[in-house]
Amino acid sequence: MKATIISVGNEILLGKTVNTNLSFLAASLFALGIEVHESMAIRDDEKAIHNALFKTETPLIIFTGGLGPTQDDKTKESVASYYGLTLIRNEQAYRDISEFFKRAGRTMDPSNDKQADFPENAVILKNTRGTAPGAIIPHGDKHIILLPGPPSELRPMFPDIKEYLKPYLNETVYQKGFLVVGQGESDFETKMAPVYKGHPDVNIAPYASTGEITYIFTSRDEDKLKMALDDFKSRFSAFIVGAFDTPLEAHVVKALADQNKTISFAESCTGGMVASRLVNVSGASKVFKESFILYDNESKIKHLGVNRMVLEKYGAVSDACVYELAYQLHQRTGADVSLSLSGIAGPDGGTKDKPVGLVYFGIHHEGRTKTYSRIFAGDRHMIRVKATAYALYLVHKTVMHDED
Amino acid sequence: MKATIISVGNEILLGKTVNTNLSFLAASLFALGIEVHESMAIRDDEKAIHNALFKTETPLIIFTGGLGPTQDDKTKESVASYYGLTLIRNEQAYRDISEFFKRAGRTMDPSNDKQADFPENAVILKNTRGTAPGAIIPHGDKHIILLPGPPSELRPMFPDIKEYLKPYLNETVYQKGFLVVGQGESDFETKMAPVYKGHPDVNIAPYASTGEITYIFTSRDEDKLKMALDDFKSRFSAFIVGAFDTPLEAHVVKALADQNKTISFAESCTGGMVASRLVNVSGASKVFKESFILYDNESKIKHLGVNRMVLEKYGAVSDACVYELAYQLHQRTGADVSLSLSGIAGPDGGTKDKPVGLVYFGIHHEGRTKTYSRIFAGDRHMIRVKATAYALYLVHKTVMHDED
Repeated sequence: MKATIISVGNEILLGKTVNTNLSFLAASLFALGIEVHESMAIRDDEKAIHNALFKTETPLIIFTGGLGPTQDDKTKESVASYYGLTLIRNEQAYRDISEFFKRAGRTMDPSNDKQADFPENAVILKNTRGTAPGAIIPHGDKHIILLPGPPSELRPMFPDIKEYLKPYLNETVYQKGFLVVGQGESDFETKMAPVYKGHPDVNIAPYASTGEITYIFTSRDEDKLKMALDDFKSRFSAFIVGAFDTPLEAHVVKALADQNKTISFAESCTGGMVASRLVNVSGASKVFKESFILYDNESKIKHLGVNRMVLEKYGAVSDACVYELAYQLHQRTGADVSLSLSGIAGPDGGTKDKPVGLVYFGIHHEGRTKTYSRIFAGDRHMIRVKATAYALYLVHKTVMHDED
Repeated sequence: MKATIISVGNEILLGKTVNTNLSFLAASLFALGIEVHESMAIRDDEKAIHNALFKTETPLIIFTGGLGPTQDDKTKESVASYYGLTLIRNEQAYRDISEFFKRAGRTMDPSNDKQADFPENAVILKNTRGTAPGAIIPHGDKHIILLPGPPSELRPMFPDIKEYLKPYLNETVYQKGFLVVGQGESDFETKMAPVYKGHPDVNIAPYASTGEITYIFTSRDEDKLKMALDDFKSRFSAFIVGAFDTPLEAHVVKALADQNKTISFAESCTGGMVASRLVNVSGASKVFKESFILYDNESKIKHLGVNRMVLEKYGAVSDACVYELAYQLHQRTGADVSLSLSGIAGPDGGTKDKPVGLVYFGIHHEGRTKTYSRIFAGDRHMIRVKATAYALYLVHKTVMHDED
């Protein structure tokens, strides 16, 4: 089944709103095996809506936005006039809206009445977060779905949409995936070529964000899916952090918590980004107590007793410096895993020997201190985000696989 | 002048990428008086691109994405075939790509050659952040603009686009705006009602991100723009951080650097997010040397000597605790501005007296320590992002206006 998503609203075309509904719906539909063929963002007037419907050929058409109580909200009315449908008061929708106002301790305004009007055969999608009910309108071999614009109202309607679409989906779709970190996107993609080629009946989609990639495998054949996953695992085991639907930092907190271990950081160029990302996880306090951000040389000496000679001889961005930082961090905090990093985020400060993007990592764990270095490409922010992902990857790897 | 924006790439239609290019371009074009009539996201194949061009009626057509070196990158080729244009090697583009590889210390791959091919009359838009040059192709009464997909590559090209479009714009459009922080979005918007109403010839657009809002004022009448700006300034002076086109952290670094002052943080629930945001600014090292992330009670005692009795009697999320943290932080680091914060980011840990979202701030400056508290709405991440923006706002306000 193919779908078109049409977002109605001047906010998107004025650049006031980023269309996160599109990415949410597209990813959710993809998981059901439904391909989004095209997406449009159009003005909220009847002509634009008719025009968009005229151009659309897919059987599934999803509108977002324009279901509010004002004169400017014209999606439902325009869809009805395009297909020659009559809007009548839907009692269930009316009750839902009344209840919403009651729960919010507000009085329902007569302007909200029109939000309860739908074509006779519409399936109402209850809105628990706002006044605009959604609806699915079956029309010939088409299904037109109307959804409210605010993401917090739209998203909870998806389970009902999925339920409605079930009979129209041809087959069960199986999906699994992994989060991988530790190499650049192009390195992963080069090595992926034989995997893509070797499993033509499995859709393998890489979702890259800065410093990490999620590979999602989708197939209608469970055995073929398993073969592709096994192939992937045998090639990338060193870089797999875990399941695709859990963020990196949550994998790290879980790995530490499962072994009752604590973590501490001494950050330089990332300036607190590593610790901050770990603290994204509710429950991080089980494994995380304290960290240092040591941005200049003096602070590295003052708080962690780094040898001034090391800084003078090798510089702050060096193997020797991160080694000392990690070791001393462990001495000072007693954390089971103590990670330090120091690098050149740019745009200034690079040299021929130490280019912008070079970052050293030190990690102390079970009595040993190891160091690593990487050169990350990108602007200042990207380098820092990539260094942060790599630091968390190193912690995960160390805790899970430190057997040598 | 009206524009259509066409985003090419399966990533958007698979829900892998949120289309922030659309909001950036739409807002930037709006500032030039150019209306985005429609936007589409389409698959990266020739047929879809031809079909989109066939449907488009506006004189300005902007494509984003599909300019990479691979077989899947077909935007330029498909636009050329639609209009019957021949692609030839553009020497300037070729030089720019070679230079990019040289700067990055990499060798140019033959697959990159095609990125230098453009129609004869194309105006090249130099890409300082990646390999794909953009281009403007004049064709009859149309202007087709091709831009790379990555936002960090696309955005720096806008000044050249603006310059190119100048002769085609009917009137001068004046634009100014402010970044405001320190209140919730709905508080600002309630107080803005009379400003919106009082200046009908000025378009005032709020662009809210978590914890901060940018108000952009656009008008064809310079005097009326000034009146609206003055009205805004008189109402919101306490919350204005500075010009709209500079990020909050850069305003803070500049305010500190102008007064030769240093800053240090003791963060709890934000876990390093405040320091990390400051370090986004290249040149932060002028004002920032060191910071502590003190997530549990013991670390607050160990590193900054917070009185155990204070923690036992008032808790870590208290006026008394952030007061001590800020004061001791100053004693320990000597930073001219010493900011502490401690709060409940949730989802657990809230009580009736201390709900989720409550954050205390302490700030030591010129011999005095002041405390503040706020309750932020949202999920764990939003609360932390809002607390971070508020902390930076407090630093800015303290340095700029601490006269009482």
